[in-house]
Amino acid sequence: MYLRKDLLGLEELTAEEITHILDLAASLKEINERPIKKVPTLRGKTVIHLFYEPSTRTRMSFDIAAKRLSADTYAISTTTSSIVKGETFLDTVKNLEAMRPDIFVIRHPVSGVPHRIASVTKAGVINAGDGMHEHPTQALLDMFTIRSHKGFLKDLNVLIVGDILHSRVARSNIWGLTKMGARVTLCGPSTLVPREFEGIPGVRICQNLDDAISYADVIMVLRLQRERQDQNFITTLREYSVMFGLSLKRLERAKEDVLIMHPGPMNRGVEIDPEVADGPYSVILDQVTNGVAVRMAVLYILAQRSVGEE
Amino acid sequence: MYLRKDLLGLEELTAEEITHILDLAASLKEINERPIKKVPTLRGKTVIHLFYEPSTRTRMSFDIAAKRLSADTYAISTTTSSIVKGETFLDTVKNLEAMRPDIFVIRHPVSGVPHRIASVTKAGVINAGDGMHEHPTQALLDMFTIRSHKGFLKDLNVLIVGDILHSRVARSNIWGLTKMGARVTLCGPSTLVPREFEGIPGVRICQNLDDAISYADVIMVLRLQRERQDQNFITTLREYSVMFGLSLKRLERAKEDVLIMHPGPMNRGVEIDPEVADGPYSVILDQVTNGVAVRMAVLYILAQRSVGEE
Amino acid sequence: MYLRKDLLGLEELTAEEITHILDLAASLKEINERPIKKVPTLRGKTVIHLFYEPSTRTRMSFDIAAKRLSADTYAISTTTSSIVKGETFLDTVKNLEAMRPDIFVIRHPVSGVPHRIASVTKAGVINAGDGMHEHPTQALLDMFTIRSHKGFLKDLNVLIVGDILHSRVARSNIWGLTKMGARVTLCGPSTLVPREFEGIPGVRICQNLDDAISYADVIMVLRLQRERQDQNFITTLREYSVMFGLSLKRLERAKEDVLIMHPGPMNRGVEIDPEVADGPYSVILDQVTNGVAVRMAVLYILAQRSVGEE
Repeated sequence: MYLRKDLLGLEELTAEEITHILDLAASLKEINERPIKKVPTLRGKTVIHLFYEPSTRTRMSFDIAAKRLSADTYAISTTTSSIVKGETFLDTVKNLEAMRPDIFVIRHPVSGVPHRIASVTKAGVINAGDGMHEHPTQALLDMFTIRSHKGFLKDLNVLIVGDILHSRVARSNIWGLTKMGARVTLCGPSTLVPREFEGIPGVRICQNLDDAISYADVIMVLRLQRERQDQNFITTLREYSVMFGLSLKRLERAKEDVLIMHPGPMNRGVEIDPEVADGPYSVILDQVTNGVAVRMAVLYILAQRSVGEE
Repeated sequence: MYLRKDLLGLEELTAEEITHILDLAASLKEINERPIKKVPTLRGKTVIHLFYEPSTRTRMSFDIAAKRLSADTYAISTTTSSIVKGETFLDTVKNLEAMRPDIFVIRHPVSGVPHRIASVTKAGVINAGDGMHEHPTQALLDMFTIRSHKGFLKDLNVLIVGDILHSRVARSNIWGLTKMGARVTLCGPSTLVPREFEGIPGVRICQNLDDAISYADVIMVLRLQRERQDQNFITTLREYSVMFGLSLKRLERAKEDVLIMHPGPMNRGVEIDPEVADGPYSVILDQVTNGVAVRMAVLYILAQRSVGEE
Repeated sequence: MYLRKDLLGLEELTAEEITHILDLAASLKEINERPIKKVPTLRGKTVIHLFYEPSTRTRMSFDIAAKRLSADTYAISTTTSSIVKGETFLDTVKNLEAMRPDIFVIRHPVSGVPHRIASVTKAGVINAGDGMHEHPTQALLDMFTIRSHKGFLKDLNVLIVGDILHSRVARSNIWGLTKMGARVTLCGPSTLVPREFEGIPGVRICQNLDDAISYADVIMVLRLQRERQDQNFITTLREYSVMFGLSLKRLERAKEDVLIMHPGPMNRGVEIDPEVADGPYSVILDQVTNGVAVRMAVLYILAQRSVGEE
């Protein structure tokens, strides 16, 4: 079998494992288009969402994916939990573990937390975003979306624009895309494009955005995470928008079949113009649709594994 | 078929459509009285609650209605959503839409929001209260309750007492009741009974509360929405209570078979005395029970429609 | 039949009723260890969680128990409810009652609230902790855990250490354990061990903690409820820890097969040292696992009763 107990990041996966997930997602996707959007595959499975950061789309996407596979889902949020009584996060997890969950879906502002939890639980752990580290299901749904439009990933030029430094979405895509044979170009304010990626084969740092746009098959626009910006990084949103925002004008140089992607939520008028977000090249809502299918695939693989063991 | 894609207000419905909903609710109601309160009708349907105002009874009533029809339900609240990240409400809805829901149930403080959403989604939209505009399922459950006690709606005298101006419940009842041939009398502080209703056939503005009580078949007491009151409108709650509160004494003039209704939550001792709220004429808890049945009917009709299309 | 409509406290139960619950929990427990952790027993039942205090483990444990029996569950929290609109708690409950729930699970900071609600609803009521009064399912899971390790409860010496005064866990265990023939020793700061228990047969107040440890078969460490402490009670946490905290050193005098228990959430390093909490005598996570089984048993008994009636 391809998968391990957990999905913590794409750095750990092989191209074969990624392909396996994408293929399974392709076969599960049509469930979401049926009049009765439900199959009994994960009936009697317990999926616990542990979201320690605000989230609509990712939490909802996982929840819909789990319930369409007939799993029972539960959510712990920071405000309702025992944290207010002073319990450590690890004690909370150990206690939940004692109630025999099958899968934890974890989002946490601190990088590495899902890995730590995975090491102390028999349940499967899915990283739904940890700090600035990884957000593997986002990158999987991005690759799924690209593959479904282009037919393949190998040798495609994928341009990632924006705040690379703070982006777990960028990190997961860099790992995933390069493993699948795509070439990744990173572009953004110099303070927001860290040097750590320069050594990775298949990755290059962009010097000229307009030039990079002209040969890109795919442009991924990252969200400007205003809450994470230091005052010194960017003087104004307006200046950022002028220099790195994806406008219709800037897109004139792009290939005819370029794909425009954004992981959401969008700051319209900052990193992306509304005309681009809602325009003909945009596959932004396809990404969201595919997210449910990809998460169904990941939940299915992890839950099957735990069945196989027993 | 009677119904459209959405239930946005009673202003848009015909008497036939209203009757169809009430008849279906009557046949679904007994499910709630069974030992096993569940039928598989909406299995595999995805119902998303978008409540942008606090609510217990309406949200719970819709959720129970949906689950008793075997739908899967999800809730977005203002605090957990991407709104904190600056996403627009419309982007949130478009993203949820991309996950293939069947029905949105929406409560929003701004009038017209459900209509706006209905225009951009293929999913059915149920207005669960929008600003001061409409709250159609509340009026449907009110009419269901009246009909189940009186046998019919035509030619009944329905007195609505209180803050008509701010009340979406009053607006929906005025539309619904007059379409069904009932006569509606509005009574309240002159500043809280707007002129907009004077031209509608079947509606009259009350000059004398005690007189209106004496010929009413039904008295609907509205909640005094303290949070919406301007300081100038009413000098004191006590004064309001004396002038418009429904007391036992005031009820002495009423018909022997009058029905007392209140949409809840009640301000006991302000717009209604506890002896009246809990007294023999009160059908206030019947309203709540019937609310589940009426919402089952509306969910059923909208979901069937989407099945029929596919 | 053994059980009544409600489970409000162990003070009201007989030893036979307690044994019945524990036996049923033992037979249901294995459901939680299956690949498909679900049976259709409570299909179509409506369970409403009313939690008016923060809780992770108890709320989650009840929710998992209910869903593994196939019930539909709903949650009301203080922030989302009509309380913000000024409705009384009793009106909220009456309204929920009108929607035909089968069981309310209630946690409330005021002692006696579950009893009050039980008296006005036809639904079953489970007390999930009321003020300083009782927390019956916690004591049942504690007794279940002891019985599963020791084989019986009769004549065992159970030492309860800590803040007895504010502890509903202690109160429920005192009632339950003495009914089952165990002997209970209470130990803690003199201001936190109330006189009310001195008269109960089988209960004694401890004068010497080290001595009490030496003859205990079970040591239950209570959580120091810092939020409930008056400044005068305890000068410092450090002092409490020295005098009443369960350390490895203090355990040297204990029996070889002593069981260490804690209802959670733990203040590690205050009332219990991490080495003890995670050590070989600890059955703290067993308690959590057994909690699901015990709550399944209680839900099952109360729901069966309501079926039997109809």
